[in-house]
Amino acid sequence: MRNLQSIGMEKGLLYETIITTQDANRKPNAAPIGVICRGVNEVVIYLHEGSQTSRNIKANRRFIVNILKDPLRFVESTLGTPPLNHFDQYRDDFYLKDTDAFFSATVKDIKDIVKKDDLGPSKLSIITAEVDDIKIKRDQVEPLNRAIFAILEALIYLSRMEIADKDTATIYSGKIRDMSRIVSRVGGSEHKKAMNTILEALENRDE
Amino acid sequence: MRNLQSIGMEKGLLYETIITTQDANRKPNAAPIGVICRGVNEVVIYLHEGSQTSRNIKANRRFIVNILKDPLRFVESTLGTPPLNHFDQYRDDFYLKDTDAFFSATVKDIKDIVKKDDLGPSKLSIITAEVDDIKIKRDQVEPLNRAIFAILEALIYLSRMEIADKDTATIYSGKIRDMSRIVSRVGGSEHKKAMNTILEALENRDE
Repeated sequence: MRNLQSIGMEKGLLYETIITTQDANRKPNAAPIGVICRGVNEVVIYLHEGSQTSRNIKANRRFIVNILKDPLRFVESTLGTPPLNHFDQYRDDFYLKDTDAFFSATVKDIKDIVKKDDLGPSKLSIITAEVDDIKIKRDQVEPLNRAIFAILEALIYLSRMEIADKDTATIYSGKIRDMSRIVSRVGGSEHKKAMNTILEALENRDE
Repeated sequence: MRNLQSIGMEKGLLYETIITTQDANRKPNAAPIGVICRGVNEVVIYLHEGSQTSRNIKANRRFIVNILKDPLRFVESTLGTPPLNHFDQYRDDFYLKDTDAFFSATVKDIKDIVKKDDLGPSKLSIITAEVDDIKIKRDQVEPLNRAIFAILEALIYLSRMEIADKDTATIYSGKIRDMSRIVSRVGGSEHKKAMNTILEALENRDE
């Protein structure tokens, strides 16, 4: 029996995916959503209240997570809904035809919270779900995790600080701290260890 | 015979790697370098004048490209040189012990140029090299390309613009344009097409 490890998902990391759902009229929907791997068969997602994905998942208590890297599918599902012919059907569910892999998940728990960030308070639902069926469509499946890229970005700024003036260095220092926040949110223990080393190097410079 | 396709490298894309070289005393060195795939057996790299990697490659006309995603190795090789026990030897060359894959490359051409950017002029060498031997050490090899991450980042800012005030929206617009520059530099045609759609959506908002 396959589990999330078979598609390269590690516990504790957040992956960038596209979630497909359907409404009461069986109209499919796709939206880019970060999926946290909580265990070999459990995921957690945070959904904004009022989004189509949130409405569909609350109604059906079920969703499909598509693992892919196709940039056009991410753009398309952010700006609107992909055309019907980009979806395919597996039993009663819709998934994205071009996906590298996908899995279905059944909701176990829904918790509604209010989160405050720099854009003000927003209503979120924390959905915990159990993974049912995992389907692999391509040889090479690699779920997208942003941590290593945030680290590379931070390292680029850290290197450039060597030759930057004071004002530019302050901007770079801010960017490194932005990257550190991404790593805390999406990364695993090795990523966090790496980012701590970067922050230490940054602090030694600041003094 | 293996070629760059067998480790997932596509023509035209720039990958984040760690290049290992050695000096005249056979002391190994490692540095994070972007490697452009120019064909199934050809790569191009841009090196800063005076860097240890540049000196070593100019002396030996040879280098090793390590394909890996280990965050600590990237941090270590940016901040200094990894300890000797992190290297391993393949024939006369050094590679990183933990790498997912590596290949050796022989220099075909060196062109010295002066490049001007926002930090002033800098001397660079453009090195064209032919790929010799490719060694795969792990089942799943996936060379790091930043384009899809720049696109995801741009999409996050584009979505947030819906609820941002005017000043914040201007900052987000700047960040999307930064991401677009990364995609032009490191991405393939699908990434560029995706980024153009994002920029069009941004311009339609701006009006």
